[in-house]
Formats: sequence, structure tokens, C-alpha cells
Amino acid sequence: MSIRVVVWNEFLHEKENAVVREVYPDGLHNAIAQGIGEDADVEVSTATLEEPEHGLSQARLDETDVLVWWGHKAHARVDDAIVERVAQRVHEGMGLLVLHSGHFSKIFKRLMGTPCSLRWREAGERERLWVINPSHPITQGIDKAIELPNSEMYGEPFLVPEPLETVFVSWFEGGEVFRSGLTYQRGAGRIFYFEPGHETYPIYHDPDIRRVLRNAVRWAYNPAKPWREVAEAPNVPIDQAREKIEKKGGSLHKAGEAGYR
Amino acid sequence: MSIRVVVWNEFLHEKENAVVREVYPDGLHNAIAQGIGEDADVEVSTATLEEPEHGLSQARLDETDVLVWWGHKAHARVDDAIVERVAQRVHEGMGLLVLHSGHFSKIFKRLMGTPCSLRWREAGERERLWVINPSHPITQGIDKAIELPNSEMYGEPFLVPEPLETVFVSWFEGGEVFRSGLTYQRGAGRIFYFEPGHETYPIYHDPDIRRVLRNAVRWAYNPAKPWREVAEAPNVPIDQAREKIEKKGGSLHKAGEAGYR
Amino acid sequence: MSIRVVVWNEFLHEKENAVVREVYPDGLHNAIAQGIGEDADVEVSTATLEEPEHGLSQARLDETDVLVWWGHKAHARVDDAIVERVAQRVHEGMGLLVLHSGHFSKIFKRLMGTPCSLRWREAGERERLWVINPSHPITQGIDKAIELPNSEMYGEPFLVPEPLETVFVSWFEGGEVFRSGLTYQRGAGRIFYFEPGHETYPIYHDPDIRRVLRNAVRWAYNPAKPWREVAEAPNVPIDQAREKIEKKGGSLHKAGEAGYR
Amino acid sequence: MSIRVVVWNEFLHEKENAVVREVYPDGLHNAIAQGIGEDADVEVSTATLEEPEHGLSQARLDETDVLVWWGHKAHARVDDAIVERVAQRVHEGMGLLVLHSGHFSKIFKRLMGTPCSLRWREAGERERLWVINPSHPITQGIDKAIELPNSEMYGEPFLVPEPLETVFVSWFEGGEVFRSGLTYQRGAGRIFYFEPGHETYPIYHDPDIRRVLRNAVRWAYNPAKPWREVAEAPNVPIDQAREKIEKKGGSLHKAGEAGYR
Repeated sequence: MSIRVVVWNEFLHEKENAVVREVYPDGLHNAIAQGIGEDADVEVSTATLEEPEHGLSQARLDETDVLVWWGHKAHARVDDAIVERVAQRVHEGMGLLVLHSGHFSKIFKRLMGTPCSLRWREAGERERLWVINPSHPITQGIDKAIELPNSEMYGEPFLVPEPLETVFVSWFEGGEVFRSGLTYQRGAGRIFYFEPGHETYPIYHDPDIRRVLRNAVRWAYNPAKPWREVAEAPNVPIDQAREKIEKKGGSLHKAGEAGYR
Repeated sequence: MSIRVVVWNEFLHEKENAVVREVYPDGLHNAIAQGIGEDADVEVSTATLEEPEHGLSQARLDETDVLVWWGHKAHARVDDAIVERVAQRVHEGMGLLVLHSGHFSKIFKRLMGTPCSLRWREAGERERLWVINPSHPITQGIDKAIELPNSEMYGEPFLVPEPLETVFVSWFEGGEVFRSGLTYQRGAGRIFYFEPGHETYPIYHDPDIRRVLRNAVRWAYNPAKPWREVAEAPNVPIDQAREKIEKKGGSLHKAGEAGYR
Repeated sequence: MSIRVVVWNEFLHEKENAVVREVYPDGLHNAIAQGIGEDADVEVSTATLEEPEHGLSQARLDETDVLVWWGHKAHARVDDAIVERVAQRVHEGMGLLVLHSGHFSKIFKRLMGTPCSLRWREAGERERLWVINPSHPITQGIDKAIELPNSEMYGEPFLVPEPLETVFVSWFEGGEVFRSGLTYQRGAGRIFYFEPGHETYPIYHDPDIRRVLRNAVRWAYNPAKPWREVAEAPNVPIDQAREKIEKKGGSLHKAGEAGYR
Repeated sequence: MSIRVVVWNEFLHEKENAVVREVYPDGLHNAIAQGIGEDADVEVSTATLEEPEHGLSQARLDETDVLVWWGHKAHARVDDAIVERVAQRVHEGMGLLVLHSGHFSKIFKRLMGTPCSLRWREAGERERLWVINPSHPITQGIDKAIELPNSEMYGEPFLVPEPLETVFVSWFEGGEVFRSGLTYQRGAGRIFYFEPGHETYPIYHDPDIRRVLRNAVRWAYNPAKPWREVAEAPNVPIDQAREKIEKKGGSLHKAGEAGYR
């Protein structure tokens, strides 16, 4: 069975800016989708901001195994209800790859619980992503480091929670460092943040970057049945307790009543 | 200098329910505040839902070192703007203690990024909180375990991220277990979730529970200067890079321009 | 290609104690191996303490993907050199499952860096292993909890480092709790500690326990090429630095000299 | 009451190498001790390899709150029994700061459970230690980064477990990165690894480095009573179980018998 991937892109820079359009004539989403789609058993499609429901209807998300997120200038235009819908699907087990400027997307901040802020500089400087965990599924096939001749600088401190695993740390020509590949789990969903990907450089045409994306899709894919009731808080009635007990003490709720939330 | 603590309570059950009123005639917040205030160098005050701005004006939060949160039936009535204000203060370094049914509060879900769901049963059954990390500042002065003759059962799975530290795990008479004391860091702020505290039992009158609350206040207190700009993403201009670099490659932003968010 | 598993057992109780022999007439290792071997693509063999090199020659370990460890009364008889050999293979990427009383084995203490101590009671009491992380590969196919009618009690505090993931937490009839399924990574190797398995109860005949063992073998299996040089600390000569630099300052080592260790 | 610190140094380079002697005429230990001793409420003394018991008798360790470790060429000469003694004291609650080439010391490898390997180059190149967690007690008083004009390069991958907290990440002139400040907890003891400190550069005379050392001593200090029995595994007799139970099932141990280890 295939892994079903949706690559989401706000798709605005490419329409408005000639530099970006030249590098990504079909949009960033199509370059990313092409890179991921090199694996035969992966089924990739795309979605963009200006489609109805941003292309992320409930029905479509229910059939998505891994969602890839690229956004930059229009984070605020993403509908809150759709952000909640995506968060719920991540909690249920959908994988999520958050790319580059997606660090400030509503969905990433929603799942991290932190500001996700950082320092930045657009100088086209050299970046080198060192593999910190060479045994991680995401770094398979990558040598000691990935070299990018031109990159936007993202610098520490990066305001995210301490990760599950630090997979990449980047060196920048201008003197900064950045934890550029980090993993998280939220509910049943696995999340990978991957820093490179500025829209004015051909980073998503780089074979190493594409390999990391393909590896990350496989890592984030959770084959378990979606956990639909992940956010529910069911009452366990006294007569269904695993050990025999009897009601004692004062009480707020009547028997069988639903809890507050 | 004193540690300035605000104990927040929605303060509804106590007005509406005779059982709760009998156990906490002055409200849960005052019982909790009294327990915390046994330490001479701690300055405790209270705030409740129905005060203007829920008692949590910006000015007051700016002078709060540790906030303690008890809520249950009116989570939805807490204003989103005030939740964001509290989250920002936590990121800046304010400590946060989330108690019992506060697991479903907007502020806790906001900071965890997960559903924070669990299973529950109101049977007044026996709970025993085992100390998992006896070397933790929060467990000092507590013996091997805390015994509660009557407690509401909260059972796993508890949908929170893997914690920084597992401090307590609870045994319940009816057969369940629960990770009842967990620590987190979000930005510069330290968070402690502590499970016991159902409103129909005299749990906040228990000396061990009060000691944990006092310990937790000290642990959550961050003496560093508040990190006001924690959520900002400043540009680092090329001429201020620590290593000398020159502009290369394509560009989206003009020099000195603010980034998108 | 098959996953190659070796189940190691000290194999002493079964020879010396009639109770154990009755429950495990072919030895604990063969019961465990049988449970794991229910998966067609897994190749299981066994090794025991009294074989030459405890059955763990370098050649054999080099062809082992996942090692399962059961030991109890003869931890001290395991040769230190073989413990180091196993530790090196774990660092290279071999998976390791440590079962029950293996918490005090040399290899587990070697990899954890802590005392790995706990409290215990042999009363045949009821144990219930609650699934904490239902989305984890190790818990697939397991319902909310595993019920064991007779088990040895292992109680907290369990002196191990905070785990990568808390997979199971146990409830005991006598009132204790225990973090009974924990994951770790050391170098390229994944480690799963799984608490049940006392030798006088038929725990390794239980279908749920066997399923966890099969799941854990798959989880611990690292398909990457073994990382043979994981413990080496190579010099990176100046002329091979990724950025051009020149020698400055004082020096201890001559060019090309090996470092100390 | 004072915090009692012992700075341990193998103290060999300073005797054998003129370059090192010029930078540290009184030995690295005395420079480090001087930096830490700038805090009035800290009592610092030193110990070296060639003293009896390496200067680390049981009596002295029992009166040590925080141990600082610098070693390089003579790791193998440190007695295994003394390494175990130090490890036990860390488990009991003694803090440990491991400096620079101490990454390959027996005590650090013993507590990490991993090879602790890395890549290195002695070129006197520039190093910049970025503060990753500005809210951490260890980074108080430090600006965005510490600049070292001459340093030995230590490069990733650094073969340690994922840390409790990533406090510093370093940038090197030759193109590498390194997680240069990491925290761990083992038993009741807190451990901080801090990477700078090559013996041919005046790094321990740097005011920022000294401040980090002072901060780290305070962070690592555990005021709780030493946990002497941390490595013991006591039996909990049936008649002392918190819940009333009766003996069931088969049995290996006789009543009251000690467990195996």
C-alpha cells in the first residue's frame, strides 16, 4: 500500500516575485512533491492556500498519511478552524513535515506550544547541515554533512521545546548555528522540522535535500489505524473498573454524566 | 526578595454545590493559597474567573513569578486573549502550576500542543502517588508515596508530550495508573502538572500535597529577568554578522526589512 | 531479508529449581524464542551462559540484528570482555531487549550509566500493564492493558535515566506502580526494557506478552549498515577542513598524530 | 553553608610540555579553581592523578558537593575502583562537571553508557559558543555567544545520549559544529558537559568561561541529603505491602531472602 502525501504551499511568492518564479516555475509545492515522489510507493499530491478550504477538506485529510507544510508571508491567512483540523489529524497519527519558514506557521506553533522564533538573514551565505544522528532513519544515504552554497541564515536561539531527537545542526558562513532537523511526537503523530528551503535558492532541487524529505516521509508515516478518539475523555463507570470498588466520599457528577471540558 | 504567586480559580463549584462549599468554604483558591503561603518568603494572592480580565491584567501578570491554575467546568469561558497573555508570560519566564482538572484548560492545551485528554471516574477511591524521582526539588520532604483516602481517578493514556521529568506516578484502587506529576519547559518558563485536587475531597488541606505545591512554586520560579522579546524574530543585518560575509544569490527582502510572520 | 534474533538466557534456574522447570521445561530462552519466532520473517536462535563465550562470539554478534537478554542470579558470572563486546555492537546498531531481572545485568547497567535498582516482592500478585503510548510500534495489537494474574512486583523508584518514551506503566495488586516498558537509544542501537517475566509464572506463554516481544524486535531492528567506527575519534587534518583555515596558537599534538584516549 | 567543590586534573601536560606550562603555570586545576572560587560561598580545593587514590578518597568524596573533571592523556591510569566510587557519589547526588577532553574519561563514559567519541582538530581556530537556552541557570550573565579566538575543534557526531537540555552549540572557523554544553541527570546527580578547555590556549582565564563554570557549579549542586542506598534493591515483604495481599503462585525465594544481583 502506498504512503499518501499532501504537499501544502501558500503559493504566493511564486506568483508575485520574478526571482522565486525563475527558481520554482511550477511553485515550491511541485518541486517538493517531485522530490518526494521519486519513491515509487509514495502517492503525492499538492494543496495551496487559495483553494477552497486551503485544499485541506476533512475528507482529504482523512486520506492523508503525511502532510508537508511550506508557508511564509500568509501564515495569518490560514483559517483557524483548518489549523485545528490539521492538529487533530496529527494527534490521530498523521505525520507532519514542517519546512523552513513554516516555523512561524499556525500549525507548528499550535503543536509546539512555544513562540518558534529565531534570528534570520537573507545573504545567500553558505550553510552546512551536519548529521548529528547518523543512525536515524531520516539521515540514511546522507554523508557526514549536506553543503548548500546559498541559504538563508536561521540562527539560535530557536524557541521550540527540547526535541525528541536532534537530527541535524547547521553551520552558517556568517557565524551562526541552528538546530536544523528536529523530531517531535504529539499524540500519535510524528513531526519533523527541517530548516533549509528559502524560496530564492534552488534548495528543493538538491538531491540530498530531496533524499531527506523522502526519508522523513517514511519516518513520519504511522501505519497504525487513526486514533479518532484521541481528544476524548471518557468516564470509566464504577462497575467497569478493573478492580472491584464501591463509591465513597462526596460527588459532583451524577452516575454516567459526561465530564466538563 | 519574595516569590510572587497568583492562585487562579474559576470559583464556580464552590458557589453552586453544597458538597464543594463544605470542603472549601472560602473557595479552592484560598485553600491552595494558604498552603503555599506557609513559606514566609512567598507572597500569595488570588484571582478568579468573574473578576475583570479574570483578575489577570497585563500589569498583574508582569508582577507575577508563578501562576497556579485550577479550572474545571468553565474552561471555555476563559478569554482567548488572556490565554495568549498568560502563554506569553510563561514563555518570558513565569512559572506555571496546572492542577487537576486544569489538564483541559485552554492554557495547558496551548502550551502542550496536544489534546491533554485522559480517562476518569469519580468514586472517591484510594490514590497513592509514588515518588519516581526522589532527588527532584519538588519531592523534597515527601516520603516514598503520598496516600489519599479519597480521590477522583485519572487514568492513562494521558495525551501530553513526553515530559522533561516524571516526578510522580499514581496507583488507583480501581486498577488504573496515571503519571501524576510531570515537568515541562516552554521558552523560559517552567511548568508542573500535578494531578490530585478534586473539588469534593479535602486534598488541598493535606500537608503532603501542600508541601508539593510549595516545593513546586520554588522549582518553577525563574529568577532571570523576563525575556520580553522571546517571540520576536529579529533580522541580523549582513554588516552585523559575526563573520565577514557579502550578499550573494537572489533575494526576497530589501535590506533592513522586517520578516513575515 | 530476515531479522536475525538471538535470545540469551543464563539458563540456571530451570536446571536447579523444579517450579521453574515445570513452567519452562525447555528453558526460558526457548519459550521466548518460540514467541518471537511466530513471525515468519524473523530468524531466532538462542545462547546461554555456560556455552563457550556465553554463546556470544564476535562472529555471532556480528550477524545478530537484535539481542534479547534474560539473566537473574548469575549476572556476576558474565565476562566483562563479552559485556563490552555486546555494548559495542549496540552502539554500532544492534537492537537490545532487556527482560525482567535483566535490569541488574552488567550490559543494562553499562548502557544506562545508573544503578538500575528497584523494589521487589515475590507474591504472585496481579499486575496490569497499561499502554501509555498506544501509537507506539511496540504496543500495536495490544488493547488498553495487559492483565497478568500472577507476577513478581517491581516497584518505583526505578533508577534509570528518563527514557526516550514511556510505553507501559504497571499497576500492582499490593499497591505499587512501575514504568514497565521504556525505550532508549545508545549510539545507533535501540534498547527496550520490558519488566514482566518472573521465572516461576508462565508469563512468556502469554499471547500479549509474546506480541509485545515481536513488536519490540521489529522496533529495535536498525536496518542501517553497522557503524563499526562508532567509538573512534578521528583527527580532521587542517587541509581537509571544509572551510579553509590556517594553524594558529600553541600546539600539543604533531601534525597527523593520533589523539589520547 | 558553602558549596564544596573539588577540581580534579590529571596534571601531566603542565609538567611535560612547555607550551602548556606557560599558559597554566600552576596547572589547569588551579586556574579552574580560581575561576570557580570567585564566588564567596563556594569552597574550592583540588585533586590530581598522582596523589594517593588520585586525591579522591571515600572520605573526601563524601564531603564533596560538586566534582569538576579535567583529564586527557591518562584516562587509562585512573583506577576502576575509584571511577565506581565517583559514579556512586554522582548517583547519590554529587554534581559533576566534565570538561573538554574529559569526554573520553572513564567516569563520563561510565555515566553516559555510550562511546562519547567525536572528531577533533588542533588548529587554534576561532570558536563561538551560542547560547541555545538563555533561560537556563548555566547561561545567566552570558550574552548571545561566547567568542574564543583560539580553540581546539571538537566536531559532531558526538556519541552521547540525547541530553536533558542543550545549553550551548558551537560554531568553528573550519566549518564544524558541536553541542558544547549539555546537561544530564543520573540517579540524584546532575552532570554538565562543557566542551572548551584545550590546554594550550588560555581558555580557563576567560571571564565568560569562568562565569559558566560558576553557574554550572550552582546548577549541579543538589542540596538534598545524599541518597546512600540509591543502588540497593530492597525486598518489600508481603505483610508490609500498602494494600493487603496474600502469597499466590510459585516461588523462587524463601520469605525475607535477599534478591540476586
